[in-house]
Amino acid sequence: MEAPNILREDLPFPLGVLRASVLERNLTRFQQFSEAAGVLLCPHAKTTMAPALFRRQLAAGSWGLTFANGAQVRAARAHGVPRIFYANELVGAADIRFVAAELRRDPEFEFYCLADSVAGVRLLAERIAALGPEGPGRPVSVLVEGGLAGARCGVRDVATAVEVAEAIRAAAPHLALAGVEGFEGLARARDGGDREVIVREFLAFLAAIATALDERDLFDRPEVLLTAGGSALFDLVIDVLTRTRLSRPTQVMLRSGCYLSEDWGLYRRALADLHQRTGSAAPDLEPALEVWAQVLSVPEPGLLILSAGRRDFGQDAGNPIALTHVRRGADERRSLLDAGWTMAAASDQHAHMAVPPDHGAAVGDLVALGPSHPCTTFDKWRTLYLVDDDYTVTEEVPTFF
Amino acid sequence: MEAPNILREDLPFPLGVLRASVLERNLTRFQQFSEAAGVLLCPHAKTTMAPALFRRQLAAGSWGLTFANGAQVRAARAHGVPRIFYANELVGAADIRFVAAELRRDPEFEFYCLADSVAGVRLLAERIAALGPEGPGRPVSVLVEGGLAGARCGVRDVATAVEVAEAIRAAAPHLALAGVEGFEGLARARDGGDREVIVREFLAFLAAIATALDERDLFDRPEVLLTAGGSALFDLVIDVLTRTRLSRPTQVMLRSGCYLSEDWGLYRRALADLHQRTGSAAPDLEPALEVWAQVLSVPEPGLLILSAGRRDFGQDAGNPIALTHVRRGADERRSLLDAGWTMAAASDQHAHMAVPPDHGAAVGDLVALGPSHPCTTFDKWRTLYLVDDDYTVTEEVPTFF
Repeated sequence: MEAPNILREDLPFPLGVLRASVLERNLTRFQQFSEAAGVLLCPHAKTTMAPALFRRQLAAGSWGLTFANGAQVRAARAHGVPRIFYANELVGAADIRFVAAELRRDPEFEFYCLADSVAGVRLLAERIAALGPEGPGRPVSVLVEGGLAGARCGVRDVATAVEVAEAIRAAAPHLALAGVEGFEGLARARDGGDREVIVREFLAFLAAIATALDERDLFDRPEVLLTAGGSALFDLVIDVLTRTRLSRPTQVMLRSGCYLSEDWGLYRRALADLHQRTGSAAPDLEPALEVWAQVLSVPEPGLLILSAGRRDFGQDAGNPIALTHVRRGADERRSLLDAGWTMAAASDQHAHMAVPPDHGAAVGDLVALGPSHPCTTFDKWRTLYLVDDDYTVTEEVPTFF
Repeated sequence: MEAPNILREDLPFPLGVLRASVLERNLTRFQQFSEAAGVLLCPHAKTTMAPALFRRQLAAGSWGLTFANGAQVRAARAHGVPRIFYANELVGAADIRFVAAELRRDPEFEFYCLADSVAGVRLLAERIAALGPEGPGRPVSVLVEGGLAGARCGVRDVATAVEVAEAIRAAAPHLALAGVEGFEGLARARDGGDREVIVREFLAFLAAIATALDERDLFDRPEVLLTAGGSALFDLVIDVLTRTRLSRPTQVMLRSGCYLSEDWGLYRRALADLHQRTGSAAPDLEPALEVWAQVLSVPEPGLLILSAGRRDFGQDAGNPIALTHVRRGADERRSLLDAGWTMAAASDQHAHMAVPPDHGAAVGDLVALGPSHPCTTFDKWRTLYLVDDDYTVTEEVPTFF
């Protein structure tokens, strides 16, 4: 059977679409950039939860993949991910049972998780100990998480970090201290200050934690893992963390997840900032993710109703923008980037587009939307479609959210 | 094997939980209410997309189920839903092919859809005609959709409604006019006006459309279907539409979807309004949907971080509220309704709870959250858990979003 084509209406709308050529370029460019910077890449895979993309990332050279809850770890293991960075505190009894069983079952499986409190470390160690012969059979690698005041998890000061690391040491042989972690993406400029300054301060705090733990000889691995880095500020992470010197070798790891698909909002702006900060030394990344919908109604002269809504794209970083218009039955793709189409509102299944009087669209036409944030758009789809530059489907991409 | 229990941590958190006893009461009460009012109930099933709940609704006496896009209709048919009200314009080629094939294959299958433009009607008829022997083999039932200025789909005036109905008549035998539809939930009070007034005006507009089409003898079915009604204003729908008299019998149909689970925000407020408006003649409905999470961190005295985030609950109608606290390893459930816990923020996988200094919670404790809107919380879960009053799982409820 001929491969389905989006523009020919072979599939029902709305559709979540990934442009294969763009994705491949982003994959290669970000991997090359990481290698040139001498850092490991362990992309946050909660963004896509798509094994077809996991495989591409690992094949391209990713050190491992990052996940953030137990359901994600189960999906990753079910699809053969060999090295998991769990960018979260490991607390739940069912999750600890699962991770322990996987570590015992598969000697090749590597797993790292975070801790930010003595209570959390003791609970984790106690729960592992209680598993007895059902335990992991080897120490679980734990990183101390550093956090920002008023933000999320993570110790707020070096003294607490030392207490947490000492608790990890005391929990041997169940736990082993592997490094220091933080997420600089939560740093917000306060009182009109400069965000870069706050982020650098936070990264210096992570380095200070690493130094304090190193001075007390609390690390349990030959190399110390230092990791931060979402998709917006990784240049600063590389700059600060690769300059951190300890008594033993360090390895800096980025966890950027959105480089693969990029977007038309949040990370597009972040990328522009990155290029400005680095004098274009940051990789060129392009948006690969589109949501295709159909014009259902033109109920008023300046209003189009499309067949995609908040069940189909995220709005947490702003509404999607209008990218492309294809007249029903036609091949020609018209760019809408400067056409003055804006999304006025969205309901569950509909987007309400405010359009100029000469919009030229009719019922049955196709419209591509560019989401503002991949994380909250990927998770709307059980299957996305990888397409070539003519929008013929080259692969179905199931997700496991 | 013993049934898993939520409070015993048999399953990994976070969890989407439905309280079976509450759900059953809501199911019975709303069905009885509809029957007493002499209206059909065809619940909007896009809210839950859960066949286990579809079956309960149909068994309780629902006339059919309502859906809003092609993927939903496919899921419904795969799970044997015999009567589908498609509360949307049917436009896409792939969707029309699917519906036609189902109508041809299964003589018991009943399907209704909407139209709001002559262009849409002609496109639908043309696409059905083009199917030839692959066509539905009987007329597709279409309702004219009435809409609100500035809102979504639907004709804005009676004259256009007549043109659309005439186009449907001209498209015989492919199409047959079955009634008039609208969604009053989109009516918003303008300029400080009274919402009830706007809603009543809109419902009167739907009645006026029905009258105009009846006067022109454009209906093609022995009974005329008049339908509106989300879950917030169904009392007004019943009041206005059941008083509409045409030359042939009418049947009023509600499409409320949220009565089944209710919520702790949007529909809780709507229900209070309903009770006030009707002098408590509206059904007593209680919230059945909860999201259970675990305390991952207490990084600051007034801050708890929970293991559920915007990937696990909707925020479009406000953040969830804190319902229940269960200390790790304990059975006792403490209500948080007046405990002063509020969700300050949520990220993908975490909720940031602002709590008073004497919050009494620790890492590993369990917390139940009450979502503000079921539609955007159900769709976060591939499986929800139906539980008894002790939070033992009685049934897994897979969803098909």
